[in-house]
Amino acid sequence: MAKMKAVVFHAPEDIRVEEVDKPQIVKPTDAIVKVTTSTICGTDLHILHGEYPVKPGLIIGHEFVGVVEQVGAQVSKFKPGDRVAVSCITQCGTCFYCKEGTYAHCVDGGWLFGNVLDGAQAEYVRVPYADMGMHLIPDELEDEDVLFVGDILSTAYFGVENARIKPGDVVAIVGAGPVGLCAIASAKLFGPSRIIAVGRRNFGRLEAARELGADDVVLSANEDPVQKIKELTDGRGADVVIECVGGTSSYETAMSLVRPGGRVSLVGVFSKPVELPLEKLWDKNITLSWGLVNANRIPELIQLIKGKKINLRSLITHTFPLEDALKAYEVFDKKIDNALKVVLKP
Amino acid sequence: MAKMKAVVFHAPEDIRVEEVDKPQIVKPTDAIVKVTTSTICGTDLHILHGEYPVKPGLIIGHEFVGVVEQVGAQVSKFKPGDRVAVSCITQCGTCFYCKEGTYAHCVDGGWLFGNVLDGAQAEYVRVPYADMGMHLIPDELEDEDVLFVGDILSTAYFGVENARIKPGDVVAIVGAGPVGLCAIASAKLFGPSRIIAVGRRNFGRLEAARELGADDVVLSANEDPVQKIKELTDGRGADVVIECVGGTSSYETAMSLVRPGGRVSLVGVFSKPVELPLEKLWDKNITLSWGLVNANRIPELIQLIKGKKINLRSLITHTFPLEDALKAYEVFDKKIDNALKVVLKP
Amino acid sequence: MAKMKAVVFHAPEDIRVEEVDKPQIVKPTDAIVKVTTSTICGTDLHILHGEYPVKPGLIIGHEFVGVVEQVGAQVSKFKPGDRVAVSCITQCGTCFYCKEGTYAHCVDGGWLFGNVLDGAQAEYVRVPYADMGMHLIPDELEDEDVLFVGDILSTAYFGVENARIKPGDVVAIVGAGPVGLCAIASAKLFGPSRIIAVGRRNFGRLEAARELGADDVVLSANEDPVQKIKELTDGRGADVVIECVGGTSSYETAMSLVRPGGRVSLVGVFSKPVELPLEKLWDKNITLSWGLVNANRIPELIQLIKGKKINLRSLITHTFPLEDALKAYEVFDKKIDNALKVVLKP
Amino acid sequence: MAKMKAVVFHAPEDIRVEEVDKPQIVKPTDAIVKVTTSTICGTDLHILHGEYPVKPGLIIGHEFVGVVEQVGAQVSKFKPGDRVAVSCITQCGTCFYCKEGTYAHCVDGGWLFGNVLDGAQAEYVRVPYADMGMHLIPDELEDEDVLFVGDILSTAYFGVENARIKPGDVVAIVGAGPVGLCAIASAKLFGPSRIIAVGRRNFGRLEAARELGADDVVLSANEDPVQKIKELTDGRGADVVIECVGGTSSYETAMSLVRPGGRVSLVGVFSKPVELPLEKLWDKNITLSWGLVNANRIPELIQLIKGKKINLRSLITHTFPLEDALKAYEVFDKKIDNALKVVLKP
Repeated sequence: MAKMKAVVFHAPEDIRVEEVDKPQIVKPTDAIVKVTTSTICGTDLHILHGEYPVKPGLIIGHEFVGVVEQVGAQVSKFKPGDRVAVSCITQCGTCFYCKEGTYAHCVDGGWLFGNVLDGAQAEYVRVPYADMGMHLIPDELEDEDVLFVGDILSTAYFGVENARIKPGDVVAIVGAGPVGLCAIASAKLFGPSRIIAVGRRNFGRLEAARELGADDVVLSANEDPVQKIKELTDGRGADVVIECVGGTSSYETAMSLVRPGGRVSLVGVFSKPVELPLEKLWDKNITLSWGLVNANRIPELIQLIKGKKINLRSLITHTFPLEDALKAYEVFDKKIDNALKVVLKP
Repeated sequence: MAKMKAVVFHAPEDIRVEEVDKPQIVKPTDAIVKVTTSTICGTDLHILHGEYPVKPGLIIGHEFVGVVEQVGAQVSKFKPGDRVAVSCITQCGTCFYCKEGTYAHCVDGGWLFGNVLDGAQAEYVRVPYADMGMHLIPDELEDEDVLFVGDILSTAYFGVENARIKPGDVVAIVGAGPVGLCAIASAKLFGPSRIIAVGRRNFGRLEAARELGADDVVLSANEDPVQKIKELTDGRGADVVIECVGGTSSYETAMSLVRPGGRVSLVGVFSKPVELPLEKLWDKNITLSWGLVNANRIPELIQLIKGKKINLRSLITHTFPLEDALKAYEVFDKKIDNALKVVLKP
Repeated sequence: MAKMKAVVFHAPEDIRVEEVDKPQIVKPTDAIVKVTTSTICGTDLHILHGEYPVKPGLIIGHEFVGVVEQVGAQVSKFKPGDRVAVSCITQCGTCFYCKEGTYAHCVDGGWLFGNVLDGAQAEYVRVPYADMGMHLIPDELEDEDVLFVGDILSTAYFGVENARIKPGDVVAIVGAGPVGLCAIASAKLFGPSRIIAVGRRNFGRLEAARELGADDVVLSANEDPVQKIKELTDGRGADVVIECVGGTSSYETAMSLVRPGGRVSLVGVFSKPVELPLEKLWDKNITLSWGLVNANRIPELIQLIKGKKINLRSLITHTFPLEDALKAYEVFDKKIDNALKVVLKP
Repeated sequence: MAKMKAVVFHAPEDIRVEEVDKPQIVKPTDAIVKVTTSTICGTDLHILHGEYPVKPGLIIGHEFVGVVEQVGAQVSKFKPGDRVAVSCITQCGTCFYCKEGTYAHCVDGGWLFGNVLDGAQAEYVRVPYADMGMHLIPDELEDEDVLFVGDILSTAYFGVENARIKPGDVVAIVGAGPVGLCAIASAKLFGPSRIIAVGRRNFGRLEAARELGADDVVLSANEDPVQKIKELTDGRGADVVIECVGGTSSYETAMSLVRPGGRVSLVGVFSKPVELPLEKLWDKNITLSWGLVNANRIPELIQLIKGKKINLRSLITHTFPLEDALKAYEVFDKKIDNALKVVLKP
């Protein structure tokens, strides 16, 4: 059986780059994709540290692009040699949830790669329902241009879409990590009059925020974001707040920034409950939304990248060969050299 | 100075029917309305028991209809003798919030009657911004037909509109008090395939729910609503849940009933914080909304009543003369004789 | 090769019930459905009379329900014996148009049955992309309950959805044939305060309109619909007009009924251009929409039928065995005995 | 009586700069505004040439900004000295149409300035319902920054909003005059992947189009826009087309560019009927909308200008003192020196 290199989870704090069997077509709707570029995502760190449990022996990683190596008999839209961006979400296309676009809840899909199926920090990956989850990369774009459409850009865009920004709105984005920066780039597409990035520390990231479209940046260690946003909005607060961290403090900041009648969208992954102070908020007319990315706008995002309306290449601060994945994890985990996104090249 | 009878708050557990000064036009946009029918609302009980503080000496009550007695110089849409339904929300029509329809947050309005301005459990009431807050009652309708458009029907409709029901949806409504029953009548307008009313006790109210349009009623003392709704929805849960109570238990029930990708709308008035278990719900793609009624659909609601698409007269279980207001409060508070809505006639 | 009976088009005014080959699975995504009930649709009359050209030898018919006889290897949601309602629109589920729900324009689908592929006035029919186009019939429903979801109910619902009815709207529906009657049943789901059915003649159909939910019926031979609708709307006109005929006169009536700021949805199939008098209408703020049915709400429609929110059985005025299809065509074409919908039973 | 200078219509081809009475407060909701900057609009040319009839003696002009001189007793949001941008549409704020935001059809308003009421090519103008129609200009903005919010920017934005652009859409804008250029700036706010400006001649305007955000410009004299747009969209056509001319040819171009399932918005003012070839388009699923501007997004547009998201100062090619209005009309009418927008300074 053919072999390949891959990053395999063995136990918390124990992942290894190993030789494993190359994946094969299992169902006629599968494709085998040769991974040309993949990343380490925040969730992968949770897996590494045992905070998000996966089965020992699993290949991890779920954000990647590659070249089609082989397609099953029922794959009709792709052929070997096609360059493809792949969704982190698997969708069958025919179930209740898929028909309404809530791919995150596909009855035979959802988040599978590097979670319950072998993932993409590998030389090859098997992609189920390939016609649904793969997207052709236009010739004029490189891997790095579209690398994030499969996960973090889709995730941020999903949160932004939930927030229903209207042209002219004032939008606050809490958190300036990779997802927060993608949220800034996504929010710009909806015509806000002003985007305000709110971060806790790490001014470098806030400068990146400004380059990606934030009109103001607020470092909450130095300045009260509530006060700042009230100044910018006749005392009302932000029309829309997008939370991109997933912690108690960022959630509370988000809820404190929104104006009556506004919307709060939570993009962060939460590991603890939060308190909703309805005794104070009951008359504030707020809409709060959250969820796992549906990744149902990848075609549009690719068009926007091709049309030069989104450019996230600057997020890539480090690139390692797949063999050096452990070092790459360390750099990403400890934010060494202000690491934002760390890329793996098989 | 002319005098009139009114229900005046003196202190918690101390309200009285008294002779007070008849109100007068203060601003040219005011009208004086002779109250022909008013109600006691759930919030009035909170005021009575000191749970919602108001100023001693205030006339309470905010849900009413009447006849225009006098109009200020700038009132152009109404004249003395016009029969009007009046919004519980005062709106100036020109501020930021009014222009977006969020009347609840009008900078010179919001909920004023029986809260910070003298209210409607009286023979007369002064209505600010009368052109905005008053609505002509069609000749063919009686007071009792449109009595609830000013508050509880608008409140329920607002919660239902927030929930964005699509035709075919399965809708669960938690709570079968007056607001819950209005929510059933409102939800029917959005074409659900099934409305399920969930109550804790009091089967009489659930029968009323059925008459107003609930397809199923679940008494949570007898039957697990989660189980029941899963049976009705291929195991998914409700597309939409509308909470009409305002308590911890009803909130938790609401959150447990919604399917992934669904919407929860809170209509109840909460006096305590609730917990949002995002560590379990983060990937469930839920939208949660709440707020004080904007009462911006009163014209549509009157048309719907006139067109026989909504009929809430059956909610009125008791009618008292204004003089007997204290007895009326007791009947409503203790749900004597299965009281649902108690009406006061000056 | 196995044989079956079917209605075959030979030339204009020449269709015949004949023995033909039974269809077979061609692609693994196909199913073979044994037709248990089918109908004659208005379009079939256009084919019969040579107004809509199809290839000689084609089996016609596209509105039907049946039982799954055989499934291809890639059909995962259905098995032989399943009772299914089938969309008149074939959709691949993965192309640009399918992903946005515009199934009518599927690059490998659209309206195929009885148009370019063999249709359903037959004992058996081959259904491409069966997982996408077939819908399980709940046990408690009979064929006749869901017979129209595949075409005319979906068509009417599509037109109604395009019209974006808001609760309280006044809706005029021009035409009271089978599609117009389905539009009345569909419009009711969106909470209008009043539905006004406008017909040219044939008072029987207008009575059917009333039974299906029309609040008023206007026979344009007797009464000016513009005048009537202005009376019902303070002189404004209808908020929404849905045209269900497809002719110059019905189009002009529709355009004359709508109020400034309103919406007109054309459901009829037009065979001639119409004039849009923009020199008079340019400042009227109207939205006009039209198109071929996407049939993307069949699951919801089945739920609504199951929930007793739509019942169209009364449209079926005649039922014939498939052998008598020619007589059935005559009855439907000439509206013999006030024929509304004519059903064929193989 | 105080006097002022103004541009007065006497007869077709006969307008004059004259001394006339200065306007006075008529109703307590009026304000008197000292005009600091006004423009000549395309509609003014129609008036000049007798193509749009107005009453002799009328002061014309309807696009302007100024300083509040005096306010009526019921004007509460403004005081003398406030710098204001004024809507070309008058709205009462309380009628059926105003409550739904369709200000163009206000029962006591609509387009009045320079049409049925004295207009703004004058030193002073009376503004009815001043609290509704006037908008404070932020200190940091000059007259020229916000000059077009009252008419052409609002008009273009209205047409763009009607077109319901989704992020990633391909948008074609037909016509590159002042309104077409404003449509480009407005369309950018909705996140299209590509904006294609289509003009008939006059390459200078197409260059302006590019500067304002068009990704491609097509001169229809040189290149077939249908062919060009098909190349850019996998053969499908534009998702959205916005027509900004108002002629038969531009309308036909617009209809030929849209893809199945797309939207066409007509912003131009039409003086002749057009043909709608429904026999060809009936199955194309198109939405077509048009109308007179509601000018209900002026606050948002001012915020967007303040936030540097819209900048239309480059449209101003010529500025004249009010005394030279006749020369200014000539320059604008004959497009002397590539005139785009011609400004009058009283």
